[in-house]
Parts: sequence; C-alpha cells; structure tokens
Amino acid sequence: MHKPIILITNDDGIMAPGIRNLVAFMREIGDVVVVAPDKGQSGMGHAVTITHPLRLEKVDVDGDHQEFSCSGTPVDCVKLAVNKVLHRKPDVLVSGINHGSNSSINVIYSGTMSAAIEGAMEGIPSIGFSLLDYSLDADFVSAKSYIQSIVRNVLAHGLPKGNCLNVNIPAVKTKQIKGVKVCRQADANWVEEFDHRKDPRGKDYYWLTGKFELFENSDETDEWALANNYISVVPVQFDFTAYPMIEKLKNWNFDA
Amino acid sequence: MHKPIILITNDDGIMAPGIRNLVAFMREIGDVVVVAPDKGQSGMGHAVTITHPLRLEKVDVDGDHQEFSCSGTPVDCVKLAVNKVLHRKPDVLVSGINHGSNSSINVIYSGTMSAAIEGAMEGIPSIGFSLLDYSLDADFVSAKSYIQSIVRNVLAHGLPKGNCLNVNIPAVKTKQIKGVKVCRQADANWVEEFDHRKDPRGKDYYWLTGKFELFENSDETDEWALANNYISVVPVQFDFTAYPMIEKLKNWNFDA
Repeated sequence: MHKPIILITNDDGIMAPGIRNLVAFMREIGDVVVVAPDKGQSGMGHAVTITHPLRLEKVDVDGDHQEFSCSGTPVDCVKLAVNKVLHRKPDVLVSGINHGSNSSINVIYSGTMSAAIEGAMEGIPSIGFSLLDYSLDADFVSAKSYIQSIVRNVLAHGLPKGNCLNVNIPAVKTKQIKGVKVCRQADANWVEEFDHRKDPRGKDYYWLTGKFELFENSDETDEWALANNYISVVPVQFDFTAYPMIEKLKNWNFDA
Repeated sequence: MHKPIILITNDDGIMAPGIRNLVAFMREIGDVVVVAPDKGQSGMGHAVTITHPLRLEKVDVDGDHQEFSCSGTPVDCVKLAVNKVLHRKPDVLVSGINHGSNSSINVIYSGTMSAAIEGAMEGIPSIGFSLLDYSLDADFVSAKSYIQSIVRNVLAHGLPKGNCLNVNIPAVKTKQIKGVKVCRQADANWVEEFDHRKDPRGKDYYWLTGKFELFENSDETDEWALANNYISVVPVQFDFTAYPMIEKLKNWNFDA
C-alpha cells in the first residue's frame, strides 16, 4: 500500500513543541519529511528571502525520517522542500501546530498559514494547524485524533486548485471539544497599542502590541466556533480581487 | 479649503527613486507625511515586527513636509504612522511607486501592497502603485498624471470598507499609455529555480529565483492590461475565505 508523503513545516521553528507533536501525529499516517525554519518566524506573513542566500541543514531530531532546518521564512521552506529536498510535490503539506491563534484576520500575518497558502499556490493539498495557546507547555495532544481526521480527509478528498485549510483548535481537553465546524473568516482587526520606551542612551523605540477587536458575532465565523469549543476549519484562497468593486470602479473617470 | 493628508510609504526604502517621485506628485495634491522603511523590504508580504523593537527617525529629505524612516516592514510603517506620527487616519494612503511589478500573484509577496492592505484593514482609502521597471533610473514621470488622477478619484469617491487598489503601470512613455483598465488578479504563479552554490568553506547555499508563469489570457486580467500598455487597477480585499468550498467541506466526515 502506498504511504502518503507528508511535508511538515511551521513558523515557530523546527524545535517548537507544536511541530514536534505534529511530526509524531503524522508519522502514524505517512512518510514524513520536515523542512522548517531554524528560528521563530512568527508574523512573517507571505515573506520570501530574496536579498540573502538560504541555508538548508540536515538535522537529526527524533526518529528515522528526514528533517532539515532552513534559514528562511516558512514560504522559503516550502519552496526549498519541493524543489531541493523532495524533488516532487508531497501528497499533503501540514504547517504548525502553531503556538497561538491564526483565526480571522490573523491569517494575513501568519507564517504558518503563508506556508499552507504557498502549498496551495503550488498545487499541493495543504493545511495550517494552530492551537489557541501560546505557552511552551501547551497541550497539543487533546486534538490529536481531530488533526489526524482532517489530514485523512484531505488525503481522501483532495482540495480544489488554489484552496487550502486554516484549522484552529480551542485550548481545551478532548472531551470538551464539540467537534469540527466549517466556517468563514470572521471580520476583525487588531487595534495597535505601541509600547513606547527609551533605550539606555535615551533614544526612543517601540514594541508593537495590540488588542484583537471582533466586528461581528455570526455563528458562521471561525471566532464563534472557537469561542464555543469547536475546531474551526476555514477554506482559504489567494485571489485578492474585490469582485463587487470592479463594476463600480469602471464608472470612475480616470482621464489623466 | 481643506487639503487632504496623504500618508506615503513603500517597500524599496525611503530613498528609492519610486517614493521620491510619488512624494513630488502627491505634494501637488495635499499635505504629505512620509513613513517608510530605512532599507529595502521587498518580498516581505504582510510581515510585522514582533520580536524586535521598532525605531522611528525623523529625516530631512526634500521639502518642508514631515518624513520618518522606520526600522520595520511596510506594515509596521503604516501602523506606526497612524498611531505615533499622525495620531489620526490620513485621508489617503499611497504606497510605492514600487520598482517592479506587483500584478497578479505578486500581490501576496509584495511589501508595497501589504502596506496598502494594512491601510484598508484600518479603514484608510489606500492605493499601491508599481512600475514594471526594476532599474534605479526607471521613468516614473510618464505616468504622473494618471497616478494623480487615480488618487484624486479615491479622495473624491472613497473606497468601500476593506478594499484598496493595486495599480500597476507599464514601463512606456506617456503617449503609449492607452489609459486605465479596471481588472481582476490574473491566475499565475512563480516556478522556482533555486540557484545552488557553494560558499568559500564548501558549504551549500541557495538563491531564490524563478520564472513567472501565466495560466490564462483573459482580457479581464491585470496581466492582459499591462501587456497591452494599459495601467491596471485591481480592487483588492483581504477576506481569504474560499466561499465555494464551504458547502463541500460540510459534507466531509470529521469524526475523530
């Protein structure tokens, strides 16, 4: 029987507990290859490395599968994995498990999800997993059977061209998880609150921080699902075109 | 008469010819404030800086308007500009003029467009401008009157919540520009071709390079418009949900 080839990456770095757990879960399903950043790359969005060269190092972490650490972003990891490690498309790409939520608007900042979107761009069925717990000793195991079920579904059904899945998991015990809910990205944003400080030389600097602000309470959204202890699954695409605006713009007068 | 406040940023860095030209064009329309990266930030996507503090330096470049260089990404620049420089939303945000195309799938990698999208997320009418010429001595002036017309249109009409514009400009003389065409993002992708080298110590490294591959020839796309000497205007939104996939996914069996 053909065992699926599973490419694993993340944005918290190759030694993060989230990816170590995901590797263990995926080894029960297929042949695992890991290509992940050599350091944390949170908040990198869909960044690629074009002004520096990339390094790829074979590493020996746990088990007999292949693992490589990469000096680049999560998107770089996917590109290098497909072109220089696998020399083919994997059967599925899984990214994560992220330490912290990538629900709603977080998808746009997320390195975890950018890796999954890059996979979709390259025609690979891809899934990003995130747990709503930032701590290093977060409990990733409670959602193990759901994570495996979602991956098996994607292997069985495939995903349409240009689609991937954004899966977020509430930080609760297995028994409290009510199941999987398919939803859409909630309308929300971050309200910035810069932490303004002075360095020892008296010069200003700023830490980016913020408060998550949710603009709706529809039960069709990922935020609602997570608040109600469901695992949220949002199908994601990368056509940024605002179609309803096209006809309106055609009425504008752009004469120079 | 109220002069509009125009926030300007880019991803090529505050001294790039593209932004210097844009500043000159915008000073004929309103009161300009510049907050732009202190170095090139191409390919940064929607990256934000969360593991390092941010620096913001007042700089004196050309003219009596305010300019600040920022150590962060284009998205950081927008957030800092609104919160710590303007202390209000500008009337319009313009990003660019980028040295090189941000048409089609390039929108997802583009720091220029991520700044415009961040503006849209914060409710600011925002536009990203890009010229299809990477060279330092590119001719930005040929499109001047079109760029000003597009900004004046956005100031007059506004943009719907969550929308911004992705404007790409063919690298031709004014007389050859056929006008402005409203379009959608073309279906395309980059095929990676890593340049594999060895450093002086014999260790491997890789440069990310690639070939742009267009999957369609519809005259409704930005690629068609640009190939035919039109300025392409694509309205952009940031809901990544793949709506047609939601109902299909609801039929999957996610039992754990």
